Amino acid sequence: MDVEVVLQSVLQQIHPTDEERVFLEGLMDELESIAENTIESMGLDVKPHFVGSLAKDTYLAGDHDVDLFLAFPLDVPLEKLREEGLNLGKAIAEKLDSHEIAYAEHPYVRARYRGVKVDLVPCYDVKSWSDVRTAVDRSVLHNRWILENLQGRNDEVRLLKRFLKGINAYGSEIYIRGFSGYLAEILVIRYGSFIKTLENADFMLKQKIIDPGNWLKREHEMAMKTVRREAEADRPLIVIDPVDPRRNVAANLSWEKYGVFYFKAHKFLENPSEEFFFPGRQKRGNYLSELRRKGTHLVTLVFKKPEMVDDLLLPQLERSARGLEKALSREGFRVLAWNTGYSRGTAFIMLETDSVVRARVKVEPGPEFFTERGQNFYRKNKRVWIVGKRLYAEKNVEQSITEVIEALLRKNQVSTGRGIRESVRGASLLVDYVPKKMEEEAYLLLSRKKWGLKG
Amino acid sequence: MDVEVVLQSVLQQIHPTDEERVFLEGLMDELESIAENTIESMGLDVKPHFVGSLAKDTYLAGDHDVDLFLAFPLDVPLEKLREEGLNLGKAIAEKLDSHEIAYAEHPYVRARYRGVKVDLVPCYDVKSWSDVRTAVDRSVLHNRWILENLQGRNDEVRLLKRFLKGINAYGSEIYIRGFSGYLAEILVIRYGSFIKTLENADFMLKQKIIDPGNWLKREHEMAMKTVRREAEADRPLIVIDPVDPRRNVAANLSWEKYGVFYFKAHKFLENPSEEFFFPGRQKRGNYLSELRRKGTHLVTLVFKKPEMVDDLLLPQLERSARGLEKALSREGFRVLAWNTGYSRGTAFIMLETDSVVRARVKVEPGPEFFTERGQNFYRKNKRVWIVGKRLYAEKNVEQSITEVIEALLRKNQVSTGRGIRESVRGASLLVDYVPKKMEEEAYLLLSRKKWGLKG
Repeated sequence: MDVEVVLQSVLQQIHPTDEERVFLEGLMDELESIAENTIESMGLDVKPHFVGSLAKDTYLAGDHDVDLFLAFPLDVPLEKLREEGLNLGKAIAEKLDSHEIAYAEHPYVRARYRGVKVDLVPCYDVKSWSDVRTAVDRSVLHNRWILENLQGRNDEVRLLKRFLKGINAYGSEIYIRGFSGYLAEILVIRYGSFIKTLENADFMLKQKIIDPGNWLKREHEMAMKTVRREAEADRPLIVIDPVDPRRNVAANLSWEKYGVFYFKAHKFLENPSEEFFFPGRQKRGNYLSELRRKGTHLVTLVFKKPEMVDDLLLPQLERSARGLEKALSREGFRVLAWNTGYSRGTAFIMLETDSVVRARVKVEPGPEFFTERGQNFYRKNKRVWIVGKRLYAEKNVEQSITEVIEALLRKNQVSTGRGIRESVRGASLLVDYVPKKMEEEAYLLLSRKKWGLKG
Repeated sequence: MDVEVVLQSVLQQIHPTDEERVFLEGLMDELESIAENTIESMGLDVKPHFVGSLAKDTYLAGDHDVDLFLAFPLDVPLEKLREEGLNLGKAIAEKLDSHEIAYAEHPYVRARYRGVKVDLVPCYDVKSWSDVRTAVDRSVLHNRWILENLQGRNDEVRLLKRFLKGINAYGSEIYIRGFSGYLAEILVIRYGSFIKTLENADFMLKQKIIDPGNWLKREHEMAMKTVRREAEADRPLIVIDPVDPRRNVAANLSWEKYGVFYFKAHKFLENPSEEFFFPGRQKRGNYLSELRRKGTHLVTLVFKKPEMVDDLLLPQLERSARGLEKALSREGFRVLAWNTGYSRGTAFIMLETDSVVRARVKVEPGPEFFTERGQNFYRKNKRVWIVGKRLYAEKNVEQSITEVIEALLRKNQVSTGRGIRESVRGASLLVDYVPKKMEEEAYLLLSRKKWGLKG
């Protein structure tokens, strides 16, 4: 299929309509007045700023959360900013439809207005990176830089973002570790278009450093420190933030997500199609047939989803899966792959293993035979023998993988996420069976379609 | 039980009777005359020497092979010694009951006379170690040194030899790697008695060097070279041969056999009994019950015993077992222990494994994804995914251990003994079953009684 035809068709679906635009502009005007009036009535010296993809006009049709940042002067102490910022947010939100308090580095108000989510986030009114005091302060600078440099390539950004979503590589959250929207914008600015960004998938990895703000000239020492630090951390890309030489915009990008982008970019260029942007729901399959085909087993821990936000919960589930993988491998069970997540109130850790039973005994290596410890080992064990200088003994062990996992958890020999340890300990263990609502996740894991690298 | 009572009872069984002594002395006199007459009639300048435990009077009752060495002058060339030695042996043997040719470093005649085995071995008539030219030349020197130093402690040697036989640690053959008779004699000379030798089991291992010939003073450089070489080879003991400073009498002693001696010596001193000298036939057990108890599996390769002497065959069987252990572990099967040997014309390699089936797929690690090889790996494989920078793929593999072993042998991926490679390749594979005649060996392996370290 012709690439231009594909892109045009995709754009028709992701470019906001005129009605949408008019609605959003009206909404933002309204919000701005409400904010300004509230600020004035409270006698505060605060500037409201719209940031994020809406303000940058790089949002996808239908996908329009409003980020309204409330910028306080730099001389306001942090404690006061937290307090007054939250109060101001609440005061504004009271004029909207509904709201709740959300927590990031500091608390902020998450409101809804006319069906749109509106985040009211206090920050400092910084002029440059050296003023930055809290994590959100940079957003205003990002916004300004993109607006100055994008020069009408907004639709190219939209295509790239939709492509990244389609291949499941979008989002810099800790449990995704993909491309952020800001990173997508910078790539389009750097390479000129969506297609050119794909064409450079290989090159950008090899060149490694992208420096659109020219920091390596302007602030060489500072920028080099960033480069060295990030190279040390072995990131796939180092994109020096054009508004802050201390920061790698791609710091959260994992090799895995870069890898997906890398292969899909090649594939798209070879054979463009809308599928990349809007993958049909993965063809459903039967996880039990996969188990039969592979001769492997699926061991699933299920437990009530702990009350935690994804940012905390999902990394802890992953850590627990890794902990189980390691502990089971010490016990002689190989974990071929794992999957974690939750479905309607039930969290799960799925482990694909090579077997679910083992011998009832294992060989325990002991000390060298001619030592004090050797004598003890000899006395203590019923069946002992020598290989080389070392004593060995037979040790009785649990035979089924569920008994093994239960014993490991009971003896605290699995490194789990700290916040979910008790939940994992109390998990039910399912072997070669999952509840209906997890069948698809089981299939995606076993078929490896979860990684989406092929087909 | 009182140790003296035990030793007296054992001695009664192993000390030759007067009748036996009279018979053997008569036999040796007769053989000496026959040899001398034959030498004279052939016009040779050869001295007949009796060597071995009979000549040293350290043989066990009923265990009396005759070693008659035919010592040629040093100026006879090796080729001539081989030829004339063999001819002389044949000429002597013709006056005995029967004979055949046997092969060691050079061929010799193995005869029988009045129900006793008589080895007729040509050698050089050496006066000291510096004259030694063939491996057997030292025997005459050994014999002389023991006769000069044993000073009536012959029964102590008998006790030690019988003890070593009882605990299965006697014999320096390559497939046994235990204590030789000569080593047992030296230990008794060094420590004074059977009991003192046991009491020093720990001490001799720690002290490491035994130098009854005082070579470290008399030939310091030469002896130190031996010590360094043998220490480098990490032998449990270094016993500098009292007749040759270049040689470690314990060079063939394995850590395993030393270990058995070590534990059994302690146990005997704690609780002396005749059992150590004459272990009842290991209590027979059922190998199938052992398999059930342990939840392990027994995979046995059986094939026609190749026509080879034990010295060659047994080490090759062991090497093949080790090769299979290694290859199977690469394939995900753990070998807990193995046993090799032959029984009435059938050789076997038994492997105790943790399982006999595995998953039908395995995870194959590929190259880093952003390389040329990564691209190929991605194209070549159906199911691929990324962990870190590396690609992984699913690979179909044989599921049953018999298929795996057959494939490994077919593809030449097992290091086997060279001389038995074809036999091993053609082996039949038995799983959790052995022929009747191998049942006891299977039981000894699975119960670990084969190592005889305990009970």
